[in-house]
Amino acid sequence: MSKVAVMGSGSWGTGFALTLCDAGNEVTMWARRAELCDAINTQHRNVDYFPTIELPPSLRAVTDPQEAMSGADFVVLAVPSQSLRENLRVWRIPENAVVVSLAKGIELGTGLRMSQVIAEVAGIPPSRIAVVTGPNLAREIAERKPSASVVASTSIETAEALQAICHTRSFRPYTNTDVIGCELGGATKNVIALAVGMAIGIGLGDNATASVITRGLAEITRLGQALGADPYTFSGLAGLGDLVATCSSPLSRNRTFGEQLGKGRTVSEITASTRQVAEGVKSCASIQALAAAHGVEMPIVDAVAAVIAEKMTPTEMITALLSRSAKPERY
Amino acid sequence: MSKVAVMGSGSWGTGFALTLCDAGNEVTMWARRAELCDAINTQHRNVDYFPTIELPPSLRAVTDPQEAMSGADFVVLAVPSQSLRENLRVWRIPENAVVVSLAKGIELGTGLRMSQVIAEVAGIPPSRIAVVTGPNLAREIAERKPSASVVASTSIETAEALQAICHTRSFRPYTNTDVIGCELGGATKNVIALAVGMAIGIGLGDNATASVITRGLAEITRLGQALGADPYTFSGLAGLGDLVATCSSPLSRNRTFGEQLGKGRTVSEITASTRQVAEGVKSCASIQALAAAHGVEMPIVDAVAAVIAEKMTPTEMITALLSRSAKPERY
Repeated sequence: MSKVAVMGSGSWGTGFALTLCDAGNEVTMWARRAELCDAINTQHRNVDYFPTIELPPSLRAVTDPQEAMSGADFVVLAVPSQSLRENLRVWRIPENAVVVSLAKGIELGTGLRMSQVIAEVAGIPPSRIAVVTGPNLAREIAERKPSASVVASTSIETAEALQAICHTRSFRPYTNTDVIGCELGGATKNVIALAVGMAIGIGLGDNATASVITRGLAEITRLGQALGADPYTFSGLAGLGDLVATCSSPLSRNRTFGEQLGKGRTVSEITASTRQVAEGVKSCASIQALAAAHGVEMPIVDAVAAVIAEKMTPTEMITALLSRSAKPERY
Repeated sequence: MSKVAVMGSGSWGTGFALTLCDAGNEVTMWARRAELCDAINTQHRNVDYFPTIELPPSLRAVTDPQEAMSGADFVVLAVPSQSLRENLRVWRIPENAVVVSLAKGIELGTGLRMSQVIAEVAGIPPSRIAVVTGPNLAREIAERKPSASVVASTSIETAEALQAICHTRSFRPYTNTDVIGCELGGATKNVIALAVGMAIGIGLGDNATASVITRGLAEITRLGQALGADPYTFSGLAGLGDLVATCSSPLSRNRTFGEQLGKGRTVSEITASTRQVAEGVKSCASIQALAAAHGVEMPIVDAVAAVIAEKMTPTEMITALLSRSAKPERY
């Protein structure tokens, strides 16, 4: 049994905290709002995200981040990717704790992956940093539907330590040492899911969305190779698996956000109407900048960024993507 | 404008015939039943498959196969894969016609791909044989929803000739010369779709189905590499694209068949209740034999074959696939 702090009370943080409880750990969750802490501690429910799911009674929530992390062997960071830096600036991570990132994004302005932000701001050595990724829709994890996952660290010992504390009957973590590929797969798939959502929103079918997914994975893989990732990672759970789950599920925030765009709503209208963060909306510009810096062509990411910046409509975007002239598939 | 014979009046034959008409060709369809021919010629509807879709008035249907093929520049074979040999034994293909296979299967007993059956039985040189594959759910093609496709031949001239006659505003064919990979992708995806359908039928979610798709593509790619295919093909529209479309769509017969199995119906019950062929039900044994002959491990194909042979229940199958012990992802 390990002592684990889960820093953040969103849907994925809650789903992973519940898994860690199921696996027999002592889990403390940090939630900013006192009302939510009370609901978790007394009703055993995250009323904001999963009002109908009963959380393990052993899950304790606190509003003080330092209290949550006190004595933790593992600190799981479950805050949005663009807030990670500001949080890490004020939090004091316990010495020797393994730091685990759940956020799937690329930092705006710096182009850094989350593990790089953790290393830079909190001064944690990469061998003590891990990430969790893969086809892991949070609601299904919270419902204990069978799911495979990827736990990655440049240190295989760290990956295996994390694997050991989160393995349950329904949650199967596989280790991987390609942190770059795992983080890029998780961040970029959100942008492709926005494109797929737009295609669905404007009324296209499964043939077209399968093509967008296929070409999306190809451009994700190209970026990964340019940044030193193992191309195999993108054929696995952290690449293809996560992309397919995110693009297939009506539960996916990014796909849903894209669908709303496809139906003609604006970015600000959709943002105003939902509590949840669609990471791809924020990450598309940072991924586009990263691709440009490495000379990688990412036509789908470029098109999504143009729609988010309101320089193009979803219909124009999908038409442009699908109407390229007939040619060999590999060119 | 070319003269094209479409031999078969199933859903994909009808969808492709409609596309060929849209592209301006003179298209004659062979349909076995006189009633269906009449309906196509007079009502311009395929009452069996797409009763609500109006076919181009230029599409002509005949019951005599030789009349359909008379003077054809292209003969499109749109019969089920296990019937192709018996049909080719009696049909006389016009000299110099390009022969195009739409069937996605592997022949039982011989382990041959459809292009190999065509070469063997009809004595057509491979340079005049082509296949059409990719994420092409027939109903969406018939509804003219935007779709990308792959036209493959070992002869790039033949692939380009086929591309030229079927390119429309909604149907975008890409050429490929890896016929082995394209045919294997099309045949094996049906078996993976059966597995995905079973997972859905027994109530699993998008996390689990995304994992089955990911591991399915990995085993398809292993088989392809053992048989001399280009692994890149499996990352493209003929591999990943077709697999994702088939597994995502409620329109897919193979996924639907698997769902029914997952809900507890037997193979014979489901077969009796549907007109359409779920190719994977017949192909799983031939793909399993092909994999065994080349020493390739295909655990999902093995499991599907065991369920189809009623040696295992879908629940036992999915439990076995998902409950392997935690380990590195690549092993």
